[in-house]
Amino acid sequence: MPDPEQDTRQTVAEIGEHALIERLRARVPAAPPWVTLGIGDDAAVLEPARGELDVLTTDALVEGVHFRRDWSVASSIGHKALAVNLSDLAAMGAAPRAALLSLALPADLPLEDFDGLLDGFLTLARDARVPLVGGNITRSPGPLMIDVTLVGSARRRRVLTRRGGRDGDELYVTGALGGAATGLAWLETTEAASRPSARAALAPALAACLDRYERPTPRLRTGLSVARNRGASACVDLSDGLADAVRQLAQASNLGAVVNAALLPVDAGTAAWSQTSGQVAADAALAGGEDYELLFAVPARKRRRFHAAVAAGGDIPVTRIGRLTKAPGLWREDDGQQRPLTGGFSHF
Amino acid sequence: MPDPEQDTRQTVAEIGEHALIERLRARVPAAPPWVTLGIGDDAAVLEPARGELDVLTTDALVEGVHFRRDWSVASSIGHKALAVNLSDLAAMGAAPRAALLSLALPADLPLEDFDGLLDGFLTLARDARVPLVGGNITRSPGPLMIDVTLVGSARRRRVLTRRGGRDGDELYVTGALGGAATGLAWLETTEAASRPSARAALAPALAACLDRYERPTPRLRTGLSVARNRGASACVDLSDGLADAVRQLAQASNLGAVVNAALLPVDAGTAAWSQTSGQVAADAALAGGEDYELLFAVPARKRRRFHAAVAAGGDIPVTRIGRLTKAPGLWREDDGQQRPLTGGFSHF
Repeated sequence: MPDPEQDTRQTVAEIGEHALIERLRARVPAAPPWVTLGIGDDAAVLEPARGELDVLTTDALVEGVHFRRDWSVASSIGHKALAVNLSDLAAMGAAPRAALLSLALPADLPLEDFDGLLDGFLTLARDARVPLVGGNITRSPGPLMIDVTLVGSARRRRVLTRRGGRDGDELYVTGALGGAATGLAWLETTEAASRPSARAALAPALAACLDRYERPTPRLRTGLSVARNRGASACVDLSDGLADAVRQLAQASNLGAVVNAALLPVDAGTAAWSQTSGQVAADAALAGGEDYELLFAVPARKRRRFHAAVAAGGDIPVTRIGRLTKAPGLWREDDGQQRPLTGGFSHF
Repeated sequence: MPDPEQDTRQTVAEIGEHALIERLRARVPAAPPWVTLGIGDDAAVLEPARGELDVLTTDALVEGVHFRRDWSVASSIGHKALAVNLSDLAAMGAAPRAALLSLALPADLPLEDFDGLLDGFLTLARDARVPLVGGNITRSPGPLMIDVTLVGSARRRRVLTRRGGRDGDELYVTGALGGAATGLAWLETTEAASRPSARAALAPALAACLDRYERPTPRLRTGLSVARNRGASACVDLSDGLADAVRQLAQASNLGAVVNAALLPVDAGTAAWSQTSGQVAADAALAGGEDYELLFAVPARKRRRFHAAVAAGGDIPVTRIGRLTKAPGLWREDDGQQRPLTGGFSHF
């Protein structure tokens, strides 16, 4: 986005809160029949999903912490704000039912960036079939903040939690690892002035990393299919990296874990980037946050069922990367040598 | 709160995200049985309210826009963040079921203010019987932001909306008006250095205004009782003042409205403040935001049922202040003279 100081475009403050809400309503498609009351009242009203449980999650993107407006276009930021929340529902095996969008906007935010944010959000919402039913718009005297809440539903006794893991369960991860962190590293190390041209000339594997960082794909169908088919004992999403996810799942299940570094499905762009940056590719795959893949714990006797469920849920590649252990502690194994599993992103 | 620059207390950044979540969990009481899965997983899981509709609302408080940390103690800010959302459910006639709390915290926020925020939030949550089931904590490079999402439930065909008003319906408002705006005006016009001593010496009516501004009481029982007894045709809460609420309700119902200025239940502190500030008390009562009272549209034939429902819902005073009209336009009547109804707060 251009420098606000040299920007003469219309801003959100110039048109005001009520006009922004109208502008938003005009972009939101007609709600499905289970939405009894959508945007515009004190609250939204939904028909519950008959016989299912309610699943609730909320996650915020904060300018300067999770994104920079001079790095990413507005539609990517809107996409990601919804994607990270859909990823949480995917990790529970829940189907999304409705979204709330709470925006805190700097007064000088160009109106076209407001529209771009909404477009990114609403395009993914349409693809994931989750209606935007309400929210809030306020001014921010500082950073742009986007807070999304999702309501989903899951079948009773089919919910995937972090704490269901059992001793000996195999750990599987979807997709490839490290790509988002590599995309972020590229943004951090490429000079601002040369970024647009450098970006246009990026090798495909690195361009894919940037895309992964800016517009992650939540693994909704995979999570839902594995949950409904009882193909796993536990699940968590990789918001803060694989090492952190393994730690979360193992600790919630009161177990230890071993990750086999040689098995990690390192993103192709991350592998290429590691060669030039000198970082060990497996380290990048373990520590890199924001891939929004899923980590599953799968009992050996359910292995076939798990793979069938993954195939039925869009057939995303999955890789066995380790196992849960009765012995406490978190370890990584490289060439038969064990050392402590470290890494993971903290938001402070 | 003290000046952060001279503050040597421990900050939220010093203890980090995971420890903050643990600190929060330790303060949260045991969840009721309908919470299948509370804080600590990718999402929360609830039993739905059998046979009822889901009601969803979200609202944010932003430092520098909705509150100032040098004006209000942390517990008041936490209280208000929940109260404004409970008020939205009250206006729908919905019972609260669960809360999500999304915090964006400046790194230098003292840990005791974090605790204070939670205490204010959780004390009101306990009183309103709404369990905190999940949320999010992130850093803010700017203002403190508190985003709350509530899930409530309402009986089918008992939901109160803004759009159910009919020509001739009488307009009733709960409680007294203008108090919160008077409290804010006092904070804005009292010099920082003299504020603590001036506050301690405040006349009771003005102290009540300050309390109203900082710790509003959502009219949950009134809203629920009127909705369940079908005592009103429409309802909205007074977040942005009475004039704005009348406009919202009338427009959503495709009607006009007349407010009788002489009937407005002006807060005692607002009346006293108006005498010294020179503002007309009725203007203050119409324009002042953040009272979080409820405005009801009541068909004449339901008047008795409405009053019985109000009495059964805690017996908060209600005052008839005007009526909905078939003729479009929003008017205020003073001594038989009509003029356009103006006023209302915008967040930009």
